[in-house]
Amino acid sequence: MRKTQEILTDAKIASRELALLSTEEKNAVLYAIADALEENADGILRANEEDIQIAKAHLPTVMLDRLRLDKKRIAGMAQGVREVAMLPDPVGKVLEENGLKNGLTVIKKRVPLGVVGIIYESRPNVTSDAGALCFKSGNACVLRGGKDAFRSSLAIVNTMRSCIAGMRLNENFINIVEDTSRQSATEMMTAVGYIDALIPRGGAGLIRACVENAKVPCIQTGTGICHIFVDKDADEEKALAIVHNAKTSRPSVCNAAEVCLVHESILQSFLPRLYERLEGVELRCDERAFEILQGKPRVLRAGETDFDTEFLDYILAIKTVSGVDEAIAHIAEHSTGHSEAIITENEATANRFTAGVDSSAVYINASTRFTDGGEFGKGCEIGISTQKLHARGPMGLEELCSYKYIVKGNGHIR
Amino acid sequence: MRKTQEILTDAKIASRELALLSTEEKNAVLYAIADALEENADGILRANEEDIQIAKAHLPTVMLDRLRLDKKRIAGMAQGVREVAMLPDPVGKVLEENGLKNGLTVIKKRVPLGVVGIIYESRPNVTSDAGALCFKSGNACVLRGGKDAFRSSLAIVNTMRSCIAGMRLNENFINIVEDTSRQSATEMMTAVGYIDALIPRGGAGLIRACVENAKVPCIQTGTGICHIFVDKDADEEKALAIVHNAKTSRPSVCNAAEVCLVHESILQSFLPRLYERLEGVELRCDERAFEILQGKPRVLRAGETDFDTEFLDYILAIKTVSGVDEAIAHIAEHSTGHSEAIITENEATANRFTAGVDSSAVYINASTRFTDGGEFGKGCEIGISTQKLHARGPMGLEELCSYKYIVKGNGHIR
Repeated sequence: MRKTQEILTDAKIASRELALLSTEEKNAVLYAIADALEENADGILRANEEDIQIAKAHLPTVMLDRLRLDKKRIAGMAQGVREVAMLPDPVGKVLEENGLKNGLTVIKKRVPLGVVGIIYESRPNVTSDAGALCFKSGNACVLRGGKDAFRSSLAIVNTMRSCIAGMRLNENFINIVEDTSRQSATEMMTAVGYIDALIPRGGAGLIRACVENAKVPCIQTGTGICHIFVDKDADEEKALAIVHNAKTSRPSVCNAAEVCLVHESILQSFLPRLYERLEGVELRCDERAFEILQGKPRVLRAGETDFDTEFLDYILAIKTVSGVDEAIAHIAEHSTGHSEAIITENEATANRFTAGVDSSAVYINASTRFTDGGEFGKGCEIGISTQKLHARGPMGLEELCSYKYIVKGNGHIR
Repeated sequence: MRKTQEILTDAKIASRELALLSTEEKNAVLYAIADALEENADGILRANEEDIQIAKAHLPTVMLDRLRLDKKRIAGMAQGVREVAMLPDPVGKVLEENGLKNGLTVIKKRVPLGVVGIIYESRPNVTSDAGALCFKSGNACVLRGGKDAFRSSLAIVNTMRSCIAGMRLNENFINIVEDTSRQSATEMMTAVGYIDALIPRGGAGLIRACVENAKVPCIQTGTGICHIFVDKDADEEKALAIVHNAKTSRPSVCNAAEVCLVHESILQSFLPRLYERLEGVELRCDERAFEILQGKPRVLRAGETDFDTEFLDYILAIKTVSGVDEAIAHIAEHSTGHSEAIITENEATANRFTAGVDSSAVYINASTRFTDGGEFGKGCEIGISTQKLHARGPMGLEELCSYKYIVKGNGHIR
């Protein structure tokens, strides 16, 4: 087993080489990796079968399904890598260029972060996805996947590494931590000087553990308590369609809505319609909303924690507000800063909402489900940042980069 | 005494109001603050005198000098605040605007970070400076200055707060922590959900403590082990002037040079000239350089730690390298990622150096001393980031901001 510290050191050294590869070299590697994943599908599936056999004993069916690979999923992974190859290279772009009065030229250029650490859970496809995104953005990566998917992820990474080595490049561009104990996660979180950015991907517990324990720069991702405010000037048809979409199209993801705030002046008319539209969704209502829907099935009084819970399920909390300012205040107190929407035809109200709500994405008359790297035109995403430092919202290739200043003089002294 | 947690809560609430102030409102406040600092100079000087009386017992003269205020220094602080008022407002700028195929409009807009925490040491002028920069960039700030300057800083902050309150705005835009014990620093470092960015300003120990203990997003600033590589194709006159300037113009600052790497093929001719030029500077030489200068005053053999020390003094470490690649490798191993320079007339060598060196600012034929917000045209700086996440190099008003996406639809669902 390679020691974690050894892997970190190797990744750091490799990152310097990787930063200097041309776009053409990087793309050639990515296409070769995509082919190799398909060619080595049998080997990856054997490793995956071992994971499944062991995980069967303790994982619920839904988790086993996430873990399981087949030829189609491997083809999907390969296709994902090819799509990353087709994206524009973010590295080397001149972001600013200034000629100073003293004759110095200051060029601000985009460069890779260096070494990116990613701690994630049990989906093995994250392995090829994250590896490809880091590679294309010029970053060496150190991946630490979930224990349950370890054999699958190792087989995927080894396929990628062999492919890189076969092209006479440094296989340490892409690395996987081989120690699956908690110790290796701690080593990554404290790898000061080795990891330039740590990105946790997974449930709220994993993310909190990383943010609280990391001594390396870390990006808080994912958790989404997303709100939709249905204003008194809302087009109710749009509101019904949007709340339905944001709640039910994929309840398990972070950009799904968890709370609907309803303007008091339309509560009486709108709420029964919303109830009808949200078939199969449990509504946890504040007192005023509860009075209106009382007695119907799947209607409950909201409990203490219901406005602070990421349900990730067919459950929606409902709160009555007196207007946009109360909506903004409620969101400020309860949101995770991911995505919020207002449904209104009143432009002034919409502007007040977008100015006052401090979340990564603020929508007017659209579903929160659009917060996604692909939807935002980034072509991909490594995660959705819910913090304000460095990157906010969907993080694509550009957000996996830093910059540096190159200053040209001719003997200049200060 | 206001409790630290209370201050953090008040700052968070105030940050929402501050984010919505117009440029005109912010500038009016800044000009009023500048006037108030001058008008209240006597009060500030009385508080400063109390600090001085207490600090006398334990602070060395050079530190007492940093701590001491007079009318001229207060006028300088006021002028600094006026200069911040004159800088462009970074908030609200549209950074990108994309119309998506599905009809959604995605606008990426610059917004304040929210609440910025600043932990610094004993210069009271940092108080007005940092307060003004955070305010102009729309951020509420929580300042925690050194114990020795507490009375001075409190008087400055109270002047700023009274001024804000007098304009019927929320005085909690600018806050100072009143508990000067270690406890309050810990409270700031762990204020998850209250502080959006923590910026330590001061010595290496303070910065390390923040980076290692912070659970809130933190920016590593400051420490500079800056290198100058004198290539075989260097113009020696430029090299002499630049090394002299980078070492001696202000040795106590982070952008001063600490190490000179000399190409082996010019060592014999260049080194004696460099020695003559660096009058008053102690040279700590590797074996080959030592052989040449041996026997002269202020020439020592480099010890084990000399290539990893921020001297902040009239001391320069000298190392012989075989060429640009060894220079790049040495820098990769020993630099803090602040600023490095190459002196060469060879463009290919210069390009290899700027591509291979991973520091915030990389210079060709210019002094490392230029790494500074003012020099880079930012008009100011809150610190110099030596990390790669969020901001790198001098941080001005723009680097005190985040962004958010505003997405406009017309009933869009996914």
